This record gives sequence, C-alpha cells and structure tokens, in this order.
Amino acid sequence: MEMVSANTTQEKGVLGRVWERIITLTKAFKEKVWEICRMTKKIAQDDPRKVIHSLKVGLAISLVSLFYYYQPLYENFGLSAMWAVMTVVVVFEYTVGATLGKGLNRTLATLMAGTLGVGAHYLASLAGEKVEPILIGFFVFLQAAIVSFIRFIPKVKARYDYGFLIFILTFSLISVSGFRDDEVLEMAHKRLSTIFIGGSACVVISIFVCPVWAGEELHYSIALNLEKLSDFLQAFICEYFTTLEDGDSTNIMSCLERYKSVLNSKSSEESLANFARWEPGHGKFRFRHPWDQYLKIGTLSRQCAYRMEALKGYLNSDNQGSSEIRSMMEEASLEMTMESTKALKELGLSIKTMTKPFSADIHIANSKAASKRLKSLLQSSLREETDLLSVIPVGTVASLLIDIADCTEKLADCVNDLASLTNFDDVESNKCPKISQSSYCECAEPDPKIDASDVVILVEDSALAMPDCEKTKSDQHNIV
Amino acid sequence: MEMVSANTTQEKGVLGRVWERIITLTKAFKEKVWEICRMTKKIAQDDPRKVIHSLKVGLAISLVSLFYYYQPLYENFGLSAMWAVMTVVVVFEYTVGATLGKGLNRTLATLMAGTLGVGAHYLASLAGEKVEPILIGFFVFLQAAIVSFIRFIPKVKARYDYGFLIFILTFSLISVSGFRDDEVLEMAHKRLSTIFIGGSACVVISIFVCPVWAGEELHYSIALNLEKLSDFLQAFICEYFTTLEDGDSTNIMSCLERYKSVLNSKSSEESLANFARWEPGHGKFRFRHPWDQYLKIGTLSRQCAYRMEALKGYLNSDNQGSSEIRSMMEEASLEMTMESTKALKELGLSIKTMTKPFSADIHIANSKAASKRLKSLLQSSLREETDLLSVIPVGTVASLLIDIADCTEKLADCVNDLASLTNFDDVESNKCPKISQSSYCECAEPDPKIDASDVVILVEDSALAMPDCEKTKSDQHNIV
Repeated sequence: MEMVSANTTQEKGVLGRVWERIITLTKAFKEKVWEICRMTKKIAQDDPRKVIHSLKVGLAISLVSLFYYYQPLYENFGLSAMWAVMTVVVVFEYTVGATLGKGLNRTLATLMAGTLGVGAHYLASLAGEKVEPILIGFFVFLQAAIVSFIRFIPKVKARYDYGFLIFILTFSLISVSGFRDDEVLEMAHKRLSTIFIGGSACVVISIFVCPVWAGEELHYSIALNLEKLSDFLQAFICEYFTTLEDGDSTNIMSCLERYKSVLNSKSSEESLANFARWEPGHGKFRFRHPWDQYLKIGTLSRQCAYRMEALKGYLNSDNQGSSEIRSMMEEASLEMTMESTKALKELGLSIKTMTKPFSADIHIANSKAASKRLKSLLQSSLREETDLLSVIPVGTVASLLIDIADCTEKLADCVNDLASLTNFDDVESNKCPKISQSSYCECAEPDPKIDASDVVILVEDSALAMPDCEKTKSDQHNIV
Repeated sequence: MEMVSANTTQEKGVLGRVWERIITLTKAFKEKVWEICRMTKKIAQDDPRKVIHSLKVGLAISLVSLFYYYQPLYENFGLSAMWAVMTVVVVFEYTVGATLGKGLNRTLATLMAGTLGVGAHYLASLAGEKVEPILIGFFVFLQAAIVSFIRFIPKVKARYDYGFLIFILTFSLISVSGFRDDEVLEMAHKRLSTIFIGGSACVVISIFVCPVWAGEELHYSIALNLEKLSDFLQAFICEYFTTLEDGDSTNIMSCLERYKSVLNSKSSEESLANFARWEPGHGKFRFRHPWDQYLKIGTLSRQCAYRMEALKGYLNSDNQGSSEIRSMMEEASLEMTMESTKALKELGLSIKTMTKPFSADIHIANSKAASKRLKSLLQSSLREETDLLSVIPVGTVASLLIDIADCTEKLADCVNDLASLTNFDDVESNKCPKISQSSYCECAEPDPKIDASDVVILVEDSALAMPDCEKTKSDQHNIV
C-alpha cells in the first residue's frame, strides 16, 4: 500500500511539475505575444506611414497578380509573369528614391545583360557543339568574377550595387538557359517586359499613393538634428548653471539625450542622399537638388555632437570646479550659448520651412561678441589662492562651448550656401519675428539681448518652457 | 574665290573644332579608364581577398550551371533549375556569416511560405471557382501587408529581413501560380529543392574556399580600432609636447587621422556581429561566441574617439596656452597618456592574439597613479599674473586626456570580461614581456617607468619609431 501511495504521490508530483511547467511556458508565451503587440503598436503610432507602406506593398502585389488572373495576359507572358510578381516584391522599398533606384537599376541591368547574354550565346554557338558549353561556362565565370569585383568599388556600391547583381543574374540565366532552349531572344524580351511592368507598378504606386520621398526625409532629418543640438545646448546650460526641481530635471534629462542619435547619423544620411538622387522633382525639391550640401551640414552637426558628448561628462562630474569662476563666466557663457542655441534653432527652422535664415547671422554675431567678452573675462588675472584643478572643469566647459559656437558659425555658412543654392524663399522682415518668436517662445525669452540681471529669469524661463521634447517628438513624426 | 576660301576656312574651323573636341573627349575617356584601373588595382592590392571572393562567385555560378549542362539534371528540375542559379547570385555574400544567414533565411522562408501558400491555395479552392481568385487575392494582400510591416521591427530587420522578403515572394508565387497550374505541390517542392541545392553550393564554397568569417572580421577590426586609438594618443602627445621635423610630422599626421574611422564604425560593427551569429564554430571562435561583448568594446572605443575628436582641435589652435603650465604638466600628462597608450595597445594585441591581457592592468594602475599626480599638480596654486585664457587650453587638453584614461580603464574591464567569457589563453609570465616588448618597441621605449629626465628621449624615440602607419595598414590587410 505504501509503495502504491508513494508511487501515486510521485506521479502526481511529476504531473504537477509538468503542469506547472506548461503554465509558466504559457505565461511566458502570452507575455512575449503582448510584448510584440505593444512594440507593433508603438511602431505604428510613431510613424503611421509604415502601416501605409505595408498596405501599398500588398496593393502592388495584388495588382500585379492580375497577370495571372486574366487569361489573355497569362497567355502572352506565361510563366515569366512571375518575374513581374518577383520584381514588385524585390523592388518595392519604403522611399520613392529607393524604389526608383532599384527599379531603374533592375531594368537597365536586365537590358544590358540581356543584350550581352544573347551576344555571348551567339558567339558560343559559332564555335561548334562541343566547344559551346565550355565557352558559355567561361563567359559566365568571367562576367560573374569581373562584376562581383566591380561591386566592391565604393561609388558603385553606393548607387549601382543592385544593378550589377541583376546583371550577373540575367547574363547567367540568358546565356545558360539559351544554351538549352534556343529561344534566347524571346526569353530576354519576356523577362525585360515583365520586369518593366512590375517595376512600373511599383514606381507608380510609390509615387502616387502617399509617397515617402527620401529627399524630404533627409531634408527634415537634417533640420531635426539641428533642433536636437539646439535642445541639448539649452538643456545643458540650464542644468549647468542652475539647480532645477525634479520635474523639470527629468524633462531636461530627456533633452540631454537627444543629440545621441546625431552621433551615428552618417550612414542613414548617406543612403538617404543616394536614394534622393534618383527622385524626380517634387514639391520644393527639384531633380538635381544639392543633396551633397545636406551631407556637409550633417558632417558639421556630428562635429557639434562629438563636442556635446565630451561636454556631457562635465554635468554630473564630482569635480564641478570653482563656483567663483563659474559665476564669473556665467553671464558671457550663457549669452554666447543662448545665441548659438537660437542660431541653431533658426537654422533648423529655416531648413524646415525652406526660407532664408533671417536672424541667424545676428545671433551668430551676438554669440561671437559674447565669445570675445568671455575670452577677455578669462584674461583677467586669477587670484593667488585659486588652484588649477578648480579652474579646469569650468575652463573646459567654456572652451567646449566656444568650440560649439564656432561650429555653429560654420553650420550657418553651410545653411546659407544651401539657401542660395536652392533659392530658399525670402522672409519679409515684418513677418520674420513672428516665425522666430513662435519657435523661441517655447525655448527662451524672445528678447535677444540679455542683461546680467536677466540671467536668472532667462534660465528659469527656458527651464520651464524649453525642454518640450515630447512636443518636438510628435512634430517629428508628423513632418519627417 | 574669297567666299569659297572663307567657307573652306570656316569648314576647316568647324572640322578642327570637332577634331579638337574628339581629342579632348578621348583624352578625358583615357584618363577616366586609367583612374578606374588605378582604383581597381588599389582595391585589389589593399585586400586581395576581394579578388578571391570574385573568383569564388564565378566558380559557384559556373558549378550550378551544371544543372543546365547535363541532361538528367535538366530533366529532373527543368526551368526551375534557374532558381538554383538565382539563389547563388543572390545568396553569395562576402562573409561566411552573411552567406549562411541569407541561405538559411531563404531556405526556411521558402519552406514556411511554400507550406502556407499550398494551404491558402487549398482553402481558396474549397470556396468554389468564382470566389477563388478573390480569396487568393485577399490572402496575398494580407500576407504581403502584414509581413512588410513586420520587417520594420528593428530586431527582425537586423537578422531576418531577407527571410521575410522571400516569404512574401514565395507565398505570392505559389498561391498565385498554383491557381493556374494546379501543380502547386510539385512547384513548391521543385523550388525548395533547387534553392536548397543553390544555397548549399554557396555555403560549401564560401566555407571551404578561402573563407572570410564575419566573426573574425569583427574580432580583428575591434582589435585594430584599439590600436588606432593608441596610435592617435601617442602621436598626439608627441605632437603636443614637442616640435618635430617635417618628415616625422607628416608621418605623425597620418596617425592622427586614423581614429576617424572609429567614429563611424557603429553600423559596420553591428552588421558584422549579426552575420557572425550565423557562423558555426571556426578556429578559436565557437558557435555562441559572445559577439555582444565586442559591440560593448566598440561603443567604448567610439567614446574614446569622440574625446579624441575634441582633443585634435587643440593641436593647431592659435591659442596654445601658457607654456609654463604646459611644461609643469608635461611629465605627469606624458606618463599618464603613455601608460594609457600602452594599455590600449596591449588590449588590442590581447584581442588579436586571444591571450589574456598580461600587463594592461599594470599600465592602467600606472596611468591612474600619474593621473592622481597630475591632479595634485594642478591643485598647486597659480601665480598671480597667470590669466585664465592661457590656462584653459592646457587644462582642457589635460582634462580630455584624463577622460580618455578613464575610458581606457573601462575598456580594459570590458576586454577582461571578454577574456574570461571566451577563455583567452594565459600567457606565461616569462613569455609575456617578449610579446609586449615586441609591440611596444616600435612605439615607445620598453621601460614602463619614466623619469622626468627621460621625457625628451622618450618622445624622440616614439616619434621616430611609433607612427608606423603604413606597416600597421598592411598588417591589417593580412589579418583582417
């Protein structure tokens, strides 16, 4: 009896454990599903255009499937109609530029490789039946090796990588299958026309149904990056020169993190610029819009961001330096940085609205004047008891801020170049203060001149009103 | 007569101009061809593995073309044999990991989408002839839209993007063409088996013919980056604390530029880590090698590089600061930075050779001691006449160097973690000095302790021997 009961308990124990394991697994699975749902919802909320893109892809593929549904089309194209479906799946990209680039690359590469493939097939067939497969094999090897190597050239990789891939593909298919079918020309023609149809469907849908232009993305992301830098600067001086309440502090903290995305923006900006070059004129962007100028602005923005990365270490450092020197430099540093901040914000706004920067030069001039004042302040002799260690943190911060002000000046030049290259609109002077004020009101007081007595008010003002990260974030998703 | 001669002159003029234009065009064309040849030669010389890769691609495609050359295979697979050629062209990537990832993604996605496609086709056929195309169209739309959206999830994009693309492709092809052919199962089977054969050919060739492992690339590029940082630091202090002759100076200048590639290394490191996760164990790397740890080291390297970017501005700045304070800090700064340099170089070497860092901790300790000494030096009072402006540049440089020393300490911790995670080999203590010496000899004198009197000799030594950029560059291409 005891044995049996022991067995039953053991069995129950085993069953119980299995049951428990099942329950934990189910729970873990449920949580995973929930997590995925939450993430999906977040992605969809952050950028509804991604949902629209998905629907566009579905639409394009369903449309091209008509090739199969309708008898006459099917008989014309036969099996190669699936090339059209394939083309849509492979070519349809998020931005118009990427789709156009891939479509053009695919069509042109197919055309060229098709011609060459037919030529290679003809040449090989002249050589006699025995030599033919050897020759064709040799041609295929040769072109695959050469084109694969060409794909390593950086300039080619950036713009024509996909085209060269399709070149290898088409050449191999045509010359190899031609050897079998002797219907090379027909196959080449079919492949080209189906690809053309599939590609056109992609391009038409991506341009006319809620288009996402790579150029516009680049344009607004460059403008947004300038705003991020400006937000950081403003949050930094608020945090460095004052002590804030907790609520503001968390808000400021999130602004202090925003510049980080600028640090690693190089590759995404470069690929956007490459896509944008394929795009036709749209809105205020013409065909040969100077996208390289945006890359220059991007490079300067990153240089600013590197300085900010170095600056940030001084916010919560143990050694904050002498408060005496800090307060001595406070006024000039604040004015210089505030002017740089305003200049950055206006430059961002100027790009965003494609209007010539109106007062950025004034802010830059003010910032330079403040920088000079700061330098002459720093030239005043130190008192004997001051040690270097208490001077250095403050000095380094000042020096990095001066660096950033210089960088802002270069940025302003670069944006001015962009404005003249692309004929940004002029803003009437009576209209302009409205623009700048409406954007600065959120971040700082509208008066560009700061008295020493105003410093505390200014800082309080900006601390309360500026780090409006949430707003800017939602802004970003509406525009970019 | 005059008219005629005038006409002739004019004609000659036109002809002459056309001729001239042709000559200039030919010249420009020749130059372009030459430029391309030079660039090609440079790419081939810089990394001969790229040539080998191109030949491998040619080999794989030629091999798979056997499907067409030999009658029996052709009869088995027919037209779908071209899927094998296509698979090779599309799947064959530079590194083993990328090829494996794409191959697995393609095979698994084809398997899953094939199954689902057949299911969808069966379900639709149950609904009757009239509803069938509508249902199939709906299924295709639904899966294309959902999968396109899933591709936006960052984690999915990083590792499974290609798989999901092929999922859409296969599902659409099978369910749509199945509607026509009623040979869905056969088609799915053919497609899967040809893709499997093409994929296997790629994987086998990429693994067994001069393999390029993504993991190894990541490993050595991380090690190389640490060396680049170390080179910069050493070149910086040589340049900052001494005046060099022209010959050395250009050599040093090239070393001062090398850290720049570290600034934008994030995306390439991340994609290499993603590829590496697909790779089987090879050499000293096992299957689940801690690739994330490499990414952590990469992040810290970039943080160092950001500081270096800020530092570099102080080399050729107009205001070099007080030479008195500079010489006061020279000894401690030099020792601290030299020790950091040595630690960085040893960490890089330790990763490269997969041996535990032997003396890095000692260098870090020395660097910390020097940093403390530097700080206490800075605490000594300033003389009355010193102005802040002459103090700040020197102070900022010292402060950034201290930052970099701190960063080096974190890097050492990270590399130690990696060493214990992956069981780096121990180096016998009698063997180790040989290793460290052989690498340091080129860059600095072997004695870790520096006297103030040795500083000049040290700097001269290192200036002559260290910035051996060319050597390191060729090293890189042999190993990485």
